[in-house]
Amino acid sequence: MNPTDWLLALSLLGTAVFAINGALTAIQAARLDIVGVITLGTITALGGGILRDALLGILPPEGLADWRFLTTALVSSALVFAVHKPLAKLARWVTIFDAAGLSLFSVTGTLVALEHGAGPLLAIILGTTTAVGGGTFRDLLTSRVPQILTSDLYAIPAMVGALATWAIWSLPWHSTALYLGAAALCFAIRMIGVRFKLHAPRVQP
Amino acid sequence: MNPTDWLLALSLLGTAVFAINGALTAIQAARLDIVGVITLGTITALGGGILRDALLGILPPEGLADWRFLTTALVSSALVFAVHKPLAKLARWVTIFDAAGLSLFSVTGTLVALEHGAGPLLAIILGTTTAVGGGTFRDLLTSRVPQILTSDLYAIPAMVGALATWAIWSLPWHSTALYLGAAALCFAIRMIGVRFKLHAPRVQP
Amino acid sequence: MNPTDWLLALSLLGTAVFAINGALTAIQAARLDIVGVITLGTITALGGGILRDALLGILPPEGLADWRFLTTALVSSALVFAVHKPLAKLARWVTIFDAAGLSLFSVTGTLVALEHGAGPLLAIILGTTTAVGGGTFRDLLTSRVPQILTSDLYAIPAMVGALATWAIWSLPWHSTALYLGAAALCFAIRMIGVRFKLHAPRVQP
Repeated sequence: MNPTDWLLALSLLGTAVFAINGALTAIQAARLDIVGVITLGTITALGGGILRDALLGILPPEGLADWRFLTTALVSSALVFAVHKPLAKLARWVTIFDAAGLSLFSVTGTLVALEHGAGPLLAIILGTTTAVGGGTFRDLLTSRVPQILTSDLYAIPAMVGALATWAIWSLPWHSTALYLGAAALCFAIRMIGVRFKLHAPRVQP
Repeated sequence: MNPTDWLLALSLLGTAVFAINGALTAIQAARLDIVGVITLGTITALGGGILRDALLGILPPEGLADWRFLTTALVSSALVFAVHKPLAKLARWVTIFDAAGLSLFSVTGTLVALEHGAGPLLAIILGTTTAVGGGTFRDLLTSRVPQILTSDLYAIPAMVGALATWAIWSLPWHSTALYLGAAALCFAIRMIGVRFKLHAPRVQP
Repeated sequence: MNPTDWLLALSLLGTAVFAINGALTAIQAARLDIVGVITLGTITALGGGILRDALLGILPPEGLADWRFLTTALVSSALVFAVHKPLAKLARWVTIFDAAGLSLFSVTGTLVALEHGAGPLLAIILGTTTAVGGGTFRDLLTSRVPQILTSDLYAIPAMVGALATWAIWSLPWHSTALYLGAAALCFAIRMIGVRFKLHAPRVQP
C-alpha cells in the first residue's frame, strides 16, 4: 500500500475501535436503545476527526463527506448492539478499545494536520485533539466529566504519540512501521497508566 | 413566493418554534432569569443551523450573519418570558414545539445542504444535525443527557424527514406542498412516538 | 505601540487571566491533577477566541496557530498549579479573574470581528461569544450549568462591553484608552452585580 492507503486504513481502524468503545459505553453506562447506542458510537468515532477538520478549515469534514468513515462508524456501533451479550466484562474492553482509538488517532490526526501544512506545534495539538475529541464528546453527552480532565495519563500518551509522529515525519525517510510504533508507544503508556493506576502530580489539599 | 422565499419562511418558523421551546424549557426546568431564558431560547433556535453551516463551511453562519434569524430567536424567546404565565401545562407545549422545530429543520437543513452541493448521504446527515443540534445544545447547557440519545423516536423521525426531503428534491418537479408533507411526516412520527411511548429496541439486561 | 500591538497585548492578557481562572476552578472545584488543571486552564483561555475564529472562518484559529496564545495559556495554568497554595481565598480570585477575562475578551473579540468585516450586530454577538465562550466550555467540562444561563449579570456586561467597543470603533478617531474604558465598564458592571447580588428579572413562580 502507498502511504495514503496506510493513513486511510489506520484512520478507519481508529474509527471502528472508537465506535465500538462509544457503543459499549452507551450500553454499559446508559442502557440506551439501539438509536442511542449507534448515535453515541458514531459521535465517539467521528467527533475527534470532525473537530480536527473544522479547526483546519477542511469543510465539510472528511468524517462526514467520505462515506467510508460514516459507514465504518455506523456498522461497528450496530454490530456492538447486535452481539454485545457474550461480552462478559464490558468495562475492561471499553478501556482497551478507548486506548486503541486514542493511539491510532493521535498518529493519524497529527499526519493529517502535517499534510495540510500545519507547523509542529499546531500538528501536535490537533493530533492530540483528534485522539481525545471523540471521547470528550462521548463523556459530555452522557453527563460525565471528560477523561482528559480526570483520567490518569490520558492526554499525556496522546501527546507523546503526536510528538513521536511529528518526529518520524521529520526524518529524511519514514515508514509505516515507525508510525505503528508511535501508536504502540501511546497505547503502552496509556495501558501501563491504567494497570498501575499511575497519575500525574495532584494538588495537595 | 418563489422557492427561496419558502425555504426562508420555513427556516424562520423553525427558528421561532425552537426559540419558544428553549425558552419554555428554561422556565420549566431551570427557572432562569430573563437573560438565561432568552439565551437558552436563542441557542436552541440557532444552534442546529449554526452547526450545519459550520460543517458546510458557510462562515459566518447564516443564523448569526442574517439579522432576521437572530431577531426571530430573540423576540420569540422574550415573548415567552413575557407571557408564559397563562400557559398552564408547559410540559406538553415544550414537546409540541420541539417536534415542530425538529420537523421544519429536518426539511430546511437538508435543502440548505443540497443547495450547497452536498451529496445525498451528507445532506441527510446535515439535515438531521440541523434538526437535533439546537435541542442537543439546550440539553447540554442544562446538564441533561440529550434527547438524541435517550428519547424514544427522536433522531429517527428527523432522519425520515431528511430522507423524504432528499427524495422530493430528486424528483423532476417538486413543490412546497411536498416539502411540507415531509415535515408533517416527521412531526407525525415524533408525536405518535410520544403519545404511545414507542421506542426502538433496547439492550436486554 | 501601534493599534495592532495593543490588540495583541490585551488579547494575551485576557488569555492569561482566563487561564488562571480556569486553573483555579480546576483546583477549587474538581481537585484535578496537573494535566487536568493545565487542560482546563488552557481550554478556558483559548475556547472563546477559537469559537469566534471558527464562526468567522479564520481557520486554523489564531489561538491554536499563534504560539504566543498557546504558550501564554499553558504557562499561566502551570504557574497556578505551582503556586496555588498561598492563595487563601480562591473563590474570590476565581470571580475576579473571570470578570477580567470577560471584559478584555468582550473588547478584543469585537475588534477582531470588526477587522474581519463583520457588521455591528455580528461583531457584538461574536465579541460577547468570545467573552463568554471559554467560561462556558469550562463549565460544560466540569458538569455545571454555565454562568451565561445562571449567573446574575454575566452576559449583559459582556454585551455592554461589546456595544461600547463597536461605538468607539465607529468614532472618526479612537484611542486605546477608550477601549480600555469599555473593558473597565464591563468589569465594573460585572463586579457590581457580584457584590450587590443584582440580577435580571426572574420568572415568577
